[in-house]
Amino acid sequence: MGLLVVGSLALDSVETPFDKVDDALGGSATYISLAASYFSGPVELVGVVGSDFPKKYVELLQQNNIDLEGLQIIEGEKTFRWGGKYHYDLNVRDTLFTELNAFQNFNPIIPERFQKSKYVCLGNIDPVLQMRVLDQMRDPQFVVCDTMNFWIEGMKDDLLKLIKRVNVLIINDSEARLLTDEPNLIKAAKMIRNLGPDILIIKKGEHGAMLFMDGTIFSAPAYPLETIFDPTGAGDTFAGGFIGYLHKTRDLTPDNLKRAVIYGSSMASFCVEKFSTQALEKLSYLQIQDRFRKFKDLSHFDQLEIDK
Amino acid sequence: MGLLVVGSLALDSVETPFDKVDDALGGSATYISLAASYFSGPVELVGVVGSDFPKKYVELLQQNNIDLEGLQIIEGEKTFRWGGKYHYDLNVRDTLFTELNAFQNFNPIIPERFQKSKYVCLGNIDPVLQMRVLDQMRDPQFVVCDTMNFWIEGMKDDLLKLIKRVNVLIINDSEARLLTDEPNLIKAAKMIRNLGPDILIIKKGEHGAMLFMDGTIFSAPAYPLETIFDPTGAGDTFAGGFIGYLHKTRDLTPDNLKRAVIYGSSMASFCVEKFSTQALEKLSYLQIQDRFRKFKDLSHFDQLEIDK
Repeated sequence: MGLLVVGSLALDSVETPFDKVDDALGGSATYISLAASYFSGPVELVGVVGSDFPKKYVELLQQNNIDLEGLQIIEGEKTFRWGGKYHYDLNVRDTLFTELNAFQNFNPIIPERFQKSKYVCLGNIDPVLQMRVLDQMRDPQFVVCDTMNFWIEGMKDDLLKLIKRVNVLIINDSEARLLTDEPNLIKAAKMIRNLGPDILIIKKGEHGAMLFMDGTIFSAPAYPLETIFDPTGAGDTFAGGFIGYLHKTRDLTPDNLKRAVIYGSSMASFCVEKFSTQALEKLSYLQIQDRFRKFKDLSHFDQLEIDK
Repeated sequence: MGLLVVGSLALDSVETPFDKVDDALGGSATYISLAASYFSGPVELVGVVGSDFPKKYVELLQQNNIDLEGLQIIEGEKTFRWGGKYHYDLNVRDTLFTELNAFQNFNPIIPERFQKSKYVCLGNIDPVLQMRVLDQMRDPQFVVCDTMNFWIEGMKDDLLKLIKRVNVLIINDSEARLLTDEPNLIKAAKMIRNLGPDILIIKKGEHGAMLFMDGTIFSAPAYPLETIFDPTGAGDTFAGGFIGYLHKTRDLTPDNLKRAVIYGSSMASFCVEKFSTQALEKLSYLQIQDRFRKFKDLSHFDQLEIDK
């Protein structure tokens, strides 16, 4: 029972107040797969790159137990490139350039072997393509879907059709407000769950993440980091840690979904501590467990009844 | 060993998307005292009003176990009035008018009886006045201080002198960034603690609150409310619940400070559910305990070690 990840692979050029990298490994499918690979594997990746995609990145993914049978390499095409610059406060970024290249005509073809997988993570790509992935799956049982403001604004009808078919939608707070035109996040969450997904996760960046499901609201803090080197990929990494942990444990109870949110948050907190995917390349399980426990220290308190 | 609260008393005119009130009971000392009164009392209030201050508000405070010996009533003067309008999303408000009136020349005189109190809560007023309060106290042992951008921008030197003498500073996230010129909140918190206060609380509105002290960072969620009727006084109410609980329990360990943050957050969550001080006028202890427990459901998760 596999875990399929579909999304983008990219070469990112990122500038932050601290440093600058060119043609670093990026893309939603990359971050999701790497994060998920710490919990469960092999992770089945479907995506597209050009013939310029560095061999070392292919090897890096393979070494992390990511099955690349579904990776299309388009001869004579270039890989999707994105360039961005983060401002001083790291919450605002400018996109400097987007060159779709091979990604422009991406048609996700799910290899026969992957079609039987029950867990599916749809990285942030065109909702029409996300739908096309689901159409090829034989019996998907747990589908996690990420999206962004670009698709909410430009492809809302397709997105609304798609999210009826997913179990978990992951979006950020401004996207939740945009999707519902409702400023109150708790009301917006209820409205989004009425659109289809049983489970909704709202990411709030430096303020953590919230999980909404029947009878449960769970609020996870963000890990307190004094220095964030590169926020790129944090959301995708969250999704990867979340679905990777659930795929490993096969337990969809509220208690386990809460843990999955914390594992997702833990992986995201590692991600932003280094440039690009560097922090996700050779983590140890002890490091991940330790980070999980730190989330507990950060958010737990015990009860002492007052009386008067 | 008393609990002294010094701050403003006001008549507020508030408009939200849901309703509108005129001359409702307001002011930082009011909210702090009412919230604290659920844990500990009598709460010793020092503040100033005009002779137009409604008798029913005096009675309301007295009925809530608030000692008004330090309340100055200036004959022939009017009470401080504030008018504000909240926008659709309730995170933005316009101040429509501010009439300082009796509050303009407020000189906090601490009655002899109150000077012996060990716990002091300095509501958000001019830091010079907050200092004058401390100068009158014989042996203050636990001082909690609130402030705002207005004083950070206009009276920074006085504020910096003051906060060297307080145990807990409570500010919101934008104020923390303003005070330190540092966008990273965790770094800003460290810088502020280096300015004096051993304990720092950063309020983040709909994203909860964070507690910083030696070796401890604690992140409390906000209570998920679908409807916020009136955010006025939420920050003061937080401070009141926080210090009231600590005054009652006399336990300043990190574990108990975490609980105090949750009691503060609980009280603030009640505050915003009704207009003005209405929600704080007759709460029951069961309601408060129940809200505390809901915070636990909201933020706790248990551990399940992964292995691979």
